[in-house]
Amino acid sequence: MTTATQIVLASRPKGSPTLENFRTETATLPAMKDGEFLVRVIWLSLDPYMRGRMDDAKSYAKAVEIGGVMEGGTVAEVMESKHEGFPVGKIVAGAFGWTSHAISNGEGVRIVDPGIAPISTAQGVLGMPGITAWVGLNDIGRAKDGETIVVSAATGAVGGMVGQLAKTKNMRVIGVAGGADKCDYAVKELGYDVCLDHRALDAKALTQAIADAAPNGVDVYFESVGGKTLEAVLPNMNTFGRIAVCGMISWYSGQGIAEAQPLPAVWRNILTRRLLVEGFIIFDHFEKFPDFMAKVGPLVGDGRITFKEDIAEGLENAPQAFLDMLGGGNFGKQMVRVGTDPA
Amino acid sequence: MTTATQIVLASRPKGSPTLENFRTETATLPAMKDGEFLVRVIWLSLDPYMRGRMDDAKSYAKAVEIGGVMEGGTVAEVMESKHEGFPVGKIVAGAFGWTSHAISNGEGVRIVDPGIAPISTAQGVLGMPGITAWVGLNDIGRAKDGETIVVSAATGAVGGMVGQLAKTKNMRVIGVAGGADKCDYAVKELGYDVCLDHRALDAKALTQAIADAAPNGVDVYFESVGGKTLEAVLPNMNTFGRIAVCGMISWYSGQGIAEAQPLPAVWRNILTRRLLVEGFIIFDHFEKFPDFMAKVGPLVGDGRITFKEDIAEGLENAPQAFLDMLGGGNFGKQMVRVGTDPA
Repeated sequence: MTTATQIVLASRPKGSPTLENFRTETATLPAMKDGEFLVRVIWLSLDPYMRGRMDDAKSYAKAVEIGGVMEGGTVAEVMESKHEGFPVGKIVAGAFGWTSHAISNGEGVRIVDPGIAPISTAQGVLGMPGITAWVGLNDIGRAKDGETIVVSAATGAVGGMVGQLAKTKNMRVIGVAGGADKCDYAVKELGYDVCLDHRALDAKALTQAIADAAPNGVDVYFESVGGKTLEAVLPNMNTFGRIAVCGMISWYSGQGIAEAQPLPAVWRNILTRRLLVEGFIIFDHFEKFPDFMAKVGPLVGDGRITFKEDIAEGLENAPQAFLDMLGGGNFGKQMVRVGTDPA
Repeated sequence: MTTATQIVLASRPKGSPTLENFRTETATLPAMKDGEFLVRVIWLSLDPYMRGRMDDAKSYAKAVEIGGVMEGGTVAEVMESKHEGFPVGKIVAGAFGWTSHAISNGEGVRIVDPGIAPISTAQGVLGMPGITAWVGLNDIGRAKDGETIVVSAATGAVGGMVGQLAKTKNMRVIGVAGGADKCDYAVKELGYDVCLDHRALDAKALTQAIADAAPNGVDVYFESVGGKTLEAVLPNMNTFGRIAVCGMISWYSGQGIAEAQPLPAVWRNILTRRLLVEGFIIFDHFEKFPDFMAKVGPLVGDGRITFKEDIAEGLENAPQAFLDMLGGGNFGKQMVRVGTDPA
């Protein structure tokens, strides 16, 4: 039998978590069966998503149970094996959790090639944070060469990767990070064009600093934080800009996502439900008018689509009709009869 | 010389507009030049977007000047013409504004076929509101057969069209409108499956009513109103749902979009800048992992992409390292060394 040291969730945090929410335990692992293998954990990755797992609010993944081992991505070595795909000595990446040892059947576990980069990167730039940056930048953010991007949490596991990948696309890359040392690192080591310290700037100053750093406006915002940074980026977004909502760490704890605060609640929904929210103004789409008329004209013409008009008589009554409409007083398309029908 | 009766913007509203913000004037139109024509307006359309034109806040279109004729879509008859494309007697649709007569060079004006439907529809179901519904439902909302949609302002010029078009796609169509008479009309005349009266329901009751009306959840929300309806729809959205943000009439006036209220400000930005905001969770995209490794692995391997790790020593220090990370105390990817490196 193998004993494992494990860290379990002792209680759910109210607001910001504390050490009291965790407890260290020693567990005896069950006997290894055919098709299973035993690993010792070498690296445990800590990531912001774990905060969400501590709550039992509805989210995209289920919560850690009270008394359950905290979830987490790990890099581990196979110590004993009854599984052909995972022989002894192999380095693997898997979600074994906050534990020193684990038994696995191989589900969701991949073998790590230690020849490519240090094995810890299998939970970093070449693991979940890395692919998050890559998909978020390219598929969600639809980033194009030469565009301008703002990256929040600019030196974080994901953000640091987003910034560097964006530079490989010849983008103008503006980071936002907390502290002068992080900002120095972002510019000197990661190649950011500019990095702004949100701790040194209030919301208004941060908004202006982004405007100064982005003379052509912001095309893509890689959003991991919410809060002040979101509010400072938004006025600088270009038309048809994209916001890849990857996280909202500034709202994960405390009163941030209370029902009384609708913006965090909306943002959380966009994130956890993977919503696509798109603003549109029809004037951008008028090239479709002929197609629209061809398809919808007949439906209106033969009455399959009906309509109702609320008619104000005379141009002089337009202002009152307009005010009524704004208050929801009209019933049907509000029109004003300015002149008589054609003869 | 032709005189025109016109309604001009007398002053900018503070909060909700009043009649004092408008003034009626008589103007003498300039002489018609070659390539121009004179119209008399028959129908003026009143639409919520006009409220935005009364403010001088930055938006997708510029404001009406003080003393300027209010903007608006119209259906008109050509009375005199020095333009071959617009002969006398033709019915045309154009943005002539809140006026009885206008002179035009034909730019942005289209000829209306009075044989298809009543000419007023050229500013209604077969005009801008109609194509807004059509594009918003199909291209922005990505509506698919059999899905469930919620339509706010369900009997409005746009919403009434969205609902009917959605029924042609065999969708489950849930309207939200203000008043029992509108809801009756939505169900009986427009074919909505359900219509909820937001005036009779508080936010919580509306949320529950939508849940009851959408047993399979909501795939598409056609958003024209913001406010309570938005907050009630969001918790009912399905994963990978789409929100087509077409308007936010409940926030157009009053204190709704004050800076102190971040949600309306964010929503306004999404709308006016046509932003695409998309939440994503990387677990939905892991099929891209091989492609990611092939492309990014070499960049990390040869140092073109760098990374930084912040290492906590020992599993027992994981909780404190996690708490520090949530507060932004880490610098680099937070890892915990649980075991020694492989031999």
